[in-house]
Amino acid sequence: MRIDHIGIVVRDLDSAIRFYRMIGAEIGERTRLEEQGADIQVIILGTARIELLTPFKEGPISRFLEKHGEGMHHICIEVEDIEEMIERLKAGGFKMVDEEPRPGLEGLIAFIHPKLTHHVLYELKER
Amino acid sequence: MRIDHIGIVVRDLDSAIRFYRMIGAEIGERTRLEEQGADIQVIILGTARIELLTPFKEGPISRFLEKHGEGMHHICIEVEDIEEMIERLKAGGFKMVDEEPRPGLEGLIAFIHPKLTHHVLYELKER
Repeated sequence: MRIDHIGIVVRDLDSAIRFYRMIGAEIGERTRLEEQGADIQVIILGTARIELLTPFKEGPISRFLEKHGEGMHHICIEVEDIEEMIERLKAGGFKMVDEEPRPGLEGLIAFIHPKLTHHVLYELKER
Repeated sequence: MRIDHIGIVVRDLDSAIRFYRMIGAEIGERTRLEEQGADIQVIILGTARIELLTPFKEGPISRFLEKHGEGMHHICIEVEDIEEMIERLKAGGFKMVDEEPRPGLEGLIAFIHPKLTHHVLYELKER
């Protein structure tokens, strides 16, 4: 189990990148996520990554930006068996945003509802 | 360079820990930070950590909790030479909360002002 990435919502990818270039982080790929209405810029920091997210149309990321402004959005934890983890969390009384794993960019993902995780939105990922 | 930890402010350490136990993360040490007025519970997730912070008296963490509620507070990046990094950031127009490195729990630390880092509070650490 490891922290895969931290998702951060920003207004503009190009200006946000400036900080990461300055500290000497590796600038990774930029991908469009149609379903989320967002563009993702990957920043590589050792074995973990930061994913900068910016909306290109109405969707969950644009709504987050309107409501909260820029800032940290979610933490993604890589797990070995995502289905087992979802069942375990549900049995423990946690609430899933995604009751079933769904395809992400690099495998299966599922979000946990932040209500019972001290307002932190956790994403689970199985590569 | 690597992500050392993510700081998360919670109301109560014991109830917050429940989630991390359930996903099988390793529960680390609990330490009192007098200067911050906060107790820290370390959660170990692979090579990175989560630090759960809760206030025990008035201070920056209690003020964060009053203003924002529970949630992600900062990201700590471990660097090789913190003084060089501070000078580089200042020369690049970024604003430091700590203009000089100061002692942290495990070495020297300095916080970067979140104004120019898309509202993310970054901590630099040199072990």
